[in-house]
Amino acid sequence: MEFSKKNITEKNINFSAWYNDVILRAELADYAPVKGCMVVRPYGYSIWENIQKILDGMIKEAGVSNAYFPLFIPQSFLNKEKEHVRGFSPELAVVTIGGGEKLAEPLVVRPTSETVIYDMYSKWIHSWRDLPLLINQWCNIVRWEKRTYLFLRTSEFLWQEGHTVHSSHEESWKEVIRALMMYKKFVEENLAIALVVGIKSKTEKFAGAVNTTTFELLMPDGKALQGGTSHDLGQNFSKVFNISFQDKEGKREYGWQTSWGTSTRLIGGLIMVHGDNSGLILPPKIAPLQVVIIPIDPKNSDLLKYCTKIKDELLNLGIRVVVDGREEETVGYKFNKWELKGVPIRLEVGEKEMVVDEITIVRRDENSKLKVKSSKLQLKIKNLLDDIQKNLFARSKKFLEENTREATSYNEFKKIMEKNRGFIKAFWCENDECEKKIKEETKASSRCLSLDAKPAFASFGYGGAREENGKCIYCGKKAVHKWVFAQSY
Amino acid sequence: MEFSKKNITEKNINFSAWYNDVILRAELADYAPVKGCMVVRPYGYSIWENIQKILDGMIKEAGVSNAYFPLFIPQSFLNKEKEHVRGFSPELAVVTIGGGEKLAEPLVVRPTSETVIYDMYSKWIHSWRDLPLLINQWCNIVRWEKRTYLFLRTSEFLWQEGHTVHSSHEESWKEVIRALMMYKKFVEENLAIALVVGIKSKTEKFAGAVNTTTFELLMPDGKALQGGTSHDLGQNFSKVFNISFQDKEGKREYGWQTSWGTSTRLIGGLIMVHGDNSGLILPPKIAPLQVVIIPIDPKNSDLLKYCTKIKDELLNLGIRVVVDGREEETVGYKFNKWELKGVPIRLEVGEKEMVVDEITIVRRDENSKLKVKSSKLQLKIKNLLDDIQKNLFARSKKFLEENTREATSYNEFKKIMEKNRGFIKAFWCENDECEKKIKEETKASSRCLSLDAKPAFASFGYGGAREENGKCIYCGKKAVHKWVFAQSY
Repeated sequence: MEFSKKNITEKNINFSAWYNDVILRAELADYAPVKGCMVVRPYGYSIWENIQKILDGMIKEAGVSNAYFPLFIPQSFLNKEKEHVRGFSPELAVVTIGGGEKLAEPLVVRPTSETVIYDMYSKWIHSWRDLPLLINQWCNIVRWEKRTYLFLRTSEFLWQEGHTVHSSHEESWKEVIRALMMYKKFVEENLAIALVVGIKSKTEKFAGAVNTTTFELLMPDGKALQGGTSHDLGQNFSKVFNISFQDKEGKREYGWQTSWGTSTRLIGGLIMVHGDNSGLILPPKIAPLQVVIIPIDPKNSDLLKYCTKIKDELLNLGIRVVVDGREEETVGYKFNKWELKGVPIRLEVGEKEMVVDEITIVRRDENSKLKVKSSKLQLKIKNLLDDIQKNLFARSKKFLEENTREATSYNEFKKIMEKNRGFIKAFWCENDECEKKIKEETKASSRCLSLDAKPAFASFGYGGAREENGKCIYCGKKAVHKWVFAQSY
Repeated sequence: MEFSKKNITEKNINFSAWYNDVILRAELADYAPVKGCMVVRPYGYSIWENIQKILDGMIKEAGVSNAYFPLFIPQSFLNKEKEHVRGFSPELAVVTIGGGEKLAEPLVVRPTSETVIYDMYSKWIHSWRDLPLLINQWCNIVRWEKRTYLFLRTSEFLWQEGHTVHSSHEESWKEVIRALMMYKKFVEENLAIALVVGIKSKTEKFAGAVNTTTFELLMPDGKALQGGTSHDLGQNFSKVFNISFQDKEGKREYGWQTSWGTSTRLIGGLIMVHGDNSGLILPPKIAPLQVVIIPIDPKNSDLLKYCTKIKDELLNLGIRVVVDGREEETVGYKFNKWELKGVPIRLEVGEKEMVVDEITIVRRDENSKLKVKSSKLQLKIKNLLDDIQKNLFARSKKFLEENTREATSYNEFKKIMEKNRGFIKAFWCENDECEKKIKEETKASSRCLSLDAKPAFASFGYGGAREENGKCIYCGKKAVHKWVFAQSY
C-alpha cells in the first residue's frame, strides 16, 4: 500500500469520503463480509484498548464491578417493558435455530442488556443490604443496520453498559449524573473533544427510561454525535422484573435503577474531530503510539543505535514510542505513513543531527518543526505531549463555541441549519408535534436541554437556572427553556 | 445468604455437587435464564480479568496485536473447509431474522473465528512484507449445549483466539509451540496447576487443523480437562480462503497458519483443583483479593483505624487487600465468607492484638495460624503469598504425578480406569478403531502424545525421543509411542 496524500479525499471537499479514506488507509478498521458489520483492525483496536483502560479505571474508582451476562435474551423478556420492546424491535437479530433444531422460543441477540441483567438482579436482590448494586459489562451488542458507517453505525459494535440499583430515587439520580460527568471528564481530558451535556426530550430518550441524559459532540460538518447516554430508569424495569428489596423498616420496595453506556462510536468522533488532510491526529493520551523515531538512513548502524538509545530513554518515562527502522520503506513513505496514522510526535534523526547531538521534532497537530539538544529531549517531549493534548482540546472547544448559535425566529433557525448547521439554542414548547415538524423541515432534532435548566437538578449541583419567559420557535406558544438542536449522526 | 460450611456438599462425597455449590455460594457465577448459558458474576469476572491481564501481556510480549472481528459468519464461509464445517455444524446457533426480515443467507454466531478472520486476511496479505501477521481476539463464542456445566460447558463462553499467518511451515510450527508453551507457563505460574502438553490424535484434533497441540489438566476426580489448544493449520484454510503472498523471489505461495485459544473454562479447572470443603482456594497471583483484614470488633474505631493503617501499608506494596468492617455481619460469618471465597490470607485483629501490636495470620491453603509483630507483617505477607502460590502448585504437581500410571495390558488399563481414573500412559497403534473401542469400553479417550515423542519436534527443542518397540494395548499390533489416555470433561 502506498501512503501518499493523494489517496485521501480532502476533508473539506467531501467529509464522509475523507472519513472513510482515513479509516481504511490508516488501517483502523475494514468492512466485514457481513452487511452492516465491521472489523476493528489492530491499530483501531489499540485505541479502543486505551479507551477501555482509562474508562474502566474511572468506573472501578466509582465502586462499580465488571461482570458478564449472556448474549442471548429470550424474546419474552424484551416484551415485558412495553416502550423498550417497541424501541428495539425493528433492529433485532434473532436466533431461531440452535444445535440443529428449531428453538421453541426465539432468542434475541442483545441490542442492550437491561432485560437479561434485571432478570438476574431480581434473584440477587432481597434486602437493603444488597444495595446499591453496581455492575458494568464490556461486550458486543447487535442493532441491525443496512448501511454501514464505520465506527458510527454498524450492526455489531463494542461498548460498556453500567446497570445499577439503588434504594431511593435521589440516590439513583446521583448515579445517573455521576456516570454522565464521568463520561464528560473522560472525553474532554482524554479524547480532547468538547461537548455539551444535558437531558433528552421525551421522543429522544431511551426506550424504557424515565429520563435520559446525554453527551453530544459536535463534528466538523456541523452534525452532532451522541457520544453516550446515562438513563434514569426509575422503577420502570424493577416493577416488571420484580426487583424489590426489604428496606430498613422491613417494608418491601422496588429498586431505583440506572443504566449508562458508551461505545466504539467514540473512535468515530475522535477521527472526525481532530483529523486533517494528511490523516488522523490522535490526542497523546489515547494514541497507541505517542512518538515515532525515524532514522534518515536506517542502514547506518550507528544511527540506529543512537535512535534506539533515544527510544529507550523515552520508554523509561512511560512514553509509547518506536523506532521505524524498516529498510524496505523510504523516509518519505514513513513520514506519510505515520502522519496518516496520527502519531503526535515524529523525531527525525540523520547523521548530521547525530553528530551535533540535536534532534528534529515534528508536531503532528501543527505540522511545525523544532530542533532540540538530546539532553533536553525527554523534558521537551513530555511538555510537547501535554501541549498537543491541550491544543487539540482548545481547538475542539473553540469550534464548538463558534458553532453554537442562538436562533430567535424559525426563519433564522432554518437559515443557520442550511448554511452552518452546528448547535442551535432555541426556545421550544416541549411538544412532540413541533419537534417532529422541525426535524422534517430542517433535519435538526432536539439534542438536549442543559442540566442547568431544570430546577430539579439544583440539588445535584446543577444550575437551578430559572424558567424563562419565551416562545416556541415553531408554534409560538409558551416555552420556558432553550433547547439545543442539531442535525445528528 | 448464610455462609456456613454446612451449605456446601463435601468434595469427596459428591464432587460435581461440591463444584456447583462452591460456584453459586462464592458468587462466581449463576445460571442464566437461557438454557445452556451462564452469568459470570463480579467475583468470578475479576478472576477472568486477572487471567486476561497476565495472558494478554504474554500475548503482546510475543508481538501479537489484538483486534476485533464480527460475531456473525455467513453460513457459506463455514462450508468452505470441509472438516471444519463437519466439526462445528451440530453446535451452531443460527440467526435467520435481522431487522424484522428473513435473511437471504443465515448467519452463524461464531463458534470460533477462523473463517471470518481468514476472509479478511486474504484481503490484507499480498507480499512477504505483510508476514508474519499476528492477531489475537478476546471475545464471546457460542457452541450450543443442552446441559450446562458452569464454566466447563456452556453455550456461550469467553475466550481468546490467536490467528497467525507465516511464510513457512517451520515458522508457523514454531508459533504453534510458542503459544502452547506460553499457556503452560501461564497456567503453571499463575493458576498453580500442573499439566501435560502434547499433540492430539487424528480423531481429537481441531476440525480443519493438520495437527493440534493441547494442554491437559488433571482434576481431583481423575478426569482430564482440556485447558486450551494450539493448532498447526498448515495451508488448509489459506488454500480455501486464498491467503497467498508473493515471496522474496516473486513466487506466489499460500500462507502457513496457526490458531490457538483458551477460555473461561480455566476458571473451572482452578476451582476444582484447589478448592476444599470450605470453598475456593485461590492462588495469590490470580486472586481478586489476596488479603482480607477482619477487625474482631468493627465498632471499635481505634481498631478500625489500626486495621486501615495495615491495609494501606499492604496496598503500597501492591497487594490486593480490604478491611471487612461491616457491622451487620458477625466475625464468624466473615471468616466463613472469605474462606468460601478463597482469599489466600486472612488477618484477624482484635483489641488484644492491637495492644501488643501483633497480628494473627491465617493461611487459607493450610488453614494454619501464626502471629507476627506488625513491624514484620509486610515482609511476612509477601513471603507467605509466594509460599502459598508455590505450595498450591506443588500439591497439584504431586497429584498429577501420583495419578499418572502406565498400563502394560488392557486389563490393567481397565482396572485403573475403574478404580483410580487419572492419566494412563499406554502403547497405542494410532488406529482410530482401537481408540474408539477403548473409549466405548472405558470412557477414556486419547488425550495427547508427548511432544518429545515425535522426532519432528526435535528441531523445536522437544525431545526427539526415539520410537519405541511396543504393542497396542488394545489390538496388540505394532505401536511406537505411549499415549496419554484419560476420561475427560
